[in-house]
Amino acid sequence: MKARVIVTLKNGVLDPQGKAIEGALASLGVEGVGGVRQGKVFDIELEGSDRALAETRLRAACEKLLANTVIENFQIEI
Amino acid sequence: MKARVIVTLKNGVLDPQGKAIEGALASLGVEGVGGVRQGKVFDIELEGSDRALAETRLRAACEKLLANTVIENFQIEI
Repeated sequence: MKARVIVTLKNGVLDPQGKAIEGALASLGVEGVGGVRQGKVFDIELEGSDRALAETRLRAACEKLLANTVIENFQIEI
Repeated sequence: MKARVIVTLKNGVLDPQGKAIEGALASLGVEGVGGVRQGKVFDIELEGSDRALAETRLRAACEKLLANTVIENFQIEI
């Protein structure tokens, strides 16, 4: 079973990397970019076909490792 | 206009970071994880409402900065 986890910064949390990308895009001549926020995406291969179990395991993976839940949100897509 | 760009490694490209995450998840007791591949996600705020122009600008942003098109694929969601 394939799943995708998307981890993004919570609203209000400063994103210096996103700011740097904004500046770089402008200097590279890409116009009309108002704001950029960067996050992480994980494509995860899971054994078995039990969706509920997979969701539970992915939630544990996010809370333990993939996301810093103080400043990041995570979204699980199975 | 809000857009999302997802950048992932092409198939066949080794992902040491993904391998490290796999190992860490196993040692943290998260079972059933067969494989992990990590990528980047960019949430981009664009000025104006012309979708075609937005797509063109995002494609240029990916090719110039956000993705290394030799080893990475990018996917644009508007």
